[in-house]
Amino acid sequence: MNYDGYFATALAQLQDEGNYRVFADLERHRGNFPQATNHGAQTRNVTIWCSNDYLGMGQHPDVLSAMHEALDKVGAGAGGTRNISGTTHNHVLLEAELADLHNKEAALLFTSGYVSNWAALGTLAAKIPDCLVLSDALNHASMIEGIRHSKAERQIWRHNDLEHLEQLLAAQPLERAKLIAFESVYSMDGDIAPIAEICDLAAKYNAMTYLDEVHAVGLYGPRGGGIAEREGLMDRVTVIEGTLGKAFGVMGGYIAASADLCDFVRSFASGFIFTTALPPAVAAGAAASIRHLKSSAAERAAQKKKVAEVRARLDAIGIPHIDNPSHIIPVMVGDPVKCKYLSDILMRDYGIYIQPINYPTVPKGTERLRITPSPVHSDADIDHLVGALETLWTQCQLARLPMAAQ
Amino acid sequence: MNYDGYFATALAQLQDEGNYRVFADLERHRGNFPQATNHGAQTRNVTIWCSNDYLGMGQHPDVLSAMHEALDKVGAGAGGTRNISGTTHNHVLLEAELADLHNKEAALLFTSGYVSNWAALGTLAAKIPDCLVLSDALNHASMIEGIRHSKAERQIWRHNDLEHLEQLLAAQPLERAKLIAFESVYSMDGDIAPIAEICDLAAKYNAMTYLDEVHAVGLYGPRGGGIAEREGLMDRVTVIEGTLGKAFGVMGGYIAASADLCDFVRSFASGFIFTTALPPAVAAGAAASIRHLKSSAAERAAQKKKVAEVRARLDAIGIPHIDNPSHIIPVMVGDPVKCKYLSDILMRDYGIYIQPINYPTVPKGTERLRITPSPVHSDADIDHLVGALETLWTQCQLARLPMAAQ
Repeated sequence: MNYDGYFATALAQLQDEGNYRVFADLERHRGNFPQATNHGAQTRNVTIWCSNDYLGMGQHPDVLSAMHEALDKVGAGAGGTRNISGTTHNHVLLEAELADLHNKEAALLFTSGYVSNWAALGTLAAKIPDCLVLSDALNHASMIEGIRHSKAERQIWRHNDLEHLEQLLAAQPLERAKLIAFESVYSMDGDIAPIAEICDLAAKYNAMTYLDEVHAVGLYGPRGGGIAEREGLMDRVTVIEGTLGKAFGVMGGYIAASADLCDFVRSFASGFIFTTALPPAVAAGAAASIRHLKSSAAERAAQKKKVAEVRARLDAIGIPHIDNPSHIIPVMVGDPVKCKYLSDILMRDYGIYIQPINYPTVPKGTERLRITPSPVHSDADIDHLVGALETLWTQCQLARLPMAAQ
Repeated sequence: MNYDGYFATALAQLQDEGNYRVFADLERHRGNFPQATNHGAQTRNVTIWCSNDYLGMGQHPDVLSAMHEALDKVGAGAGGTRNISGTTHNHVLLEAELADLHNKEAALLFTSGYVSNWAALGTLAAKIPDCLVLSDALNHASMIEGIRHSKAERQIWRHNDLEHLEQLLAAQPLERAKLIAFESVYSMDGDIAPIAEICDLAAKYNAMTYLDEVHAVGLYGPRGGGIAEREGLMDRVTVIEGTLGKAFGVMGGYIAASADLCDFVRSFASGFIFTTALPPAVAAGAAASIRHLKSSAAERAAQKKKVAEVRARLDAIGIPHIDNPSHIIPVMVGDPVKCKYLSDILMRDYGIYIQPINYPTVPKGTERLRITPSPVHSDADIDHLVGALETLWTQCQLARLPMAAQ
């Protein structure tokens, strides 16, 4: 076995397919997000159009001052796992804030949204006797890995297809344990699940529900509790999973659920138990962000307006994008090499940073530029973006057919 | 299926066994670590004796000022995965710092040490064709989960047993891919692996080596590169894995290896790709900590002295602890209920915080108080600790036989 040769060959193949990823080295300008410096062969200023810091909360003065204050008060790291000296008062306060956000008895923090899905789904499905997991076909990698980790039986229902889900549920004995795992806003297409109807089916067939709201918390609902809050459904969902790294602008993941369920996961999940806790300053920043977005709807309203504007402007010039009811605008390219080329030209010639989204993040053939307008994008930013896309679409002779119906 | 009843019963059973974990709610006093406030029914000041912030770097002025500065310069969160707008200049600089620390071509950051083991081992063992993983019997949960995740064939060699490892290696064809996974300092017993001999076997039988140095980086070697650095072996180990959350005092995990190997894991590891990057301030703090410990040996020397002193004082009064060549002092109790009771009394009556270490962190019957002396523990702290243990050992009629040989 020639290990070095194996790695080199695998990387060369990625290059050949156009799926080799090059990371943009960015330095944001604090107080002036979405502007950033792009370090590289040549250093230049760019406008970020693909961040998941959807509301710009990563630059919010309340968040930053909470982090500074925690650093001054308690220092840098947590110094241990949650069990062995790593539970700081900031973690306790943040979990209370999260339980309140989702109107649940309790919440449990993880080091990331990925880990929260992997550890919570992995533990619940593994431990609950003979549990059947019913997983939406487009669930995130972290959910798929958690379910796989559990070794529980898994059935995949067609994406957002209630009939298919009901077929699968109805085929099982009522007394068998079942866990329906799905997302509210699907990150790459931006479509939204029929949560109420899924909860109806769960009630009818005695199933638990596990809802990933990572692309919705902070963004939807009167207090930023997500789509389930907006639709008055939080009490009907067994487990709500969310992130502190997207709209809340910091880092970390969590579940909110009954006190016993959270305590159960806390007690048995390897990915929770055996890892150093989040730094207290991270927890403090996230708590400040949640608190702000509970009482302020201004950021959500402004984001909605910007998203509608970008969509309308793209429609006006026939740039194909998936129509959806969320804040995510996927501009479809459908080829990894072209997608990367467009992204490179946007960065080089226009100072616009939109990462190409290629396989494995999306299926081959559906490569795209995923645009996420935020309240901090100016009208001039939008003009510049739309102008650049229009020029490129003409130059590269890209299809202007609407692809919304695909 | 009654889900609520199931969770309640499982939790009650943990309580009955004495394995139910209660987290201590702590608030460190910055600049005065290891002192902290313990929040609870009654709030009190405690001295932390079980932190993995082994050198107190989580309170180091260089680390804190680097974090403040990064917050001021670029804001709170990274705002995306490494691929989609989340690679900040601080990540790039930190990876360069880590590659330099271990004298490797490259390094790759993860959100935690747990994730680095899970994702790196999981990806290498899954992708390398027909890879056999040879795993030390006492490897950390995160390594076990990563290996399990890979679905590669796994063979477990008896802890630190070179003969057994060679037997297993010799039974395989030379051309078959093999990955030897082990740790340098084992966290719960504090013993150290024979790295040179393991590398000899790897060379003889054409195996890769994967070495977890999370309890060693920052602490051993002239620049804090770990046991492999101390023994001049870094170039012989294929992959060195470490953490930024223990001796470096912040948060995050990494691997250091050849450029192609890191690029391979970067390109294929789900747990690397699909997760929000570390906040830039966390990366900046970790880089400052590494830089400091590369040039300053004072913290390492002071820690060594304190560890020796605590050991000698415990020996003098016959408190049983595992003898080992590291900085970890496991005081053996051997019963989960007694272990928790001792910890509770130490906290309540003496203001000493040492978390009881029970199953599943250690095997049942080997429950312990794991003490980690640091340079920031004073002579008075040590007097108070040893005095408290002496009183309790007498009061509770605990065995004073040396258990080092067990």
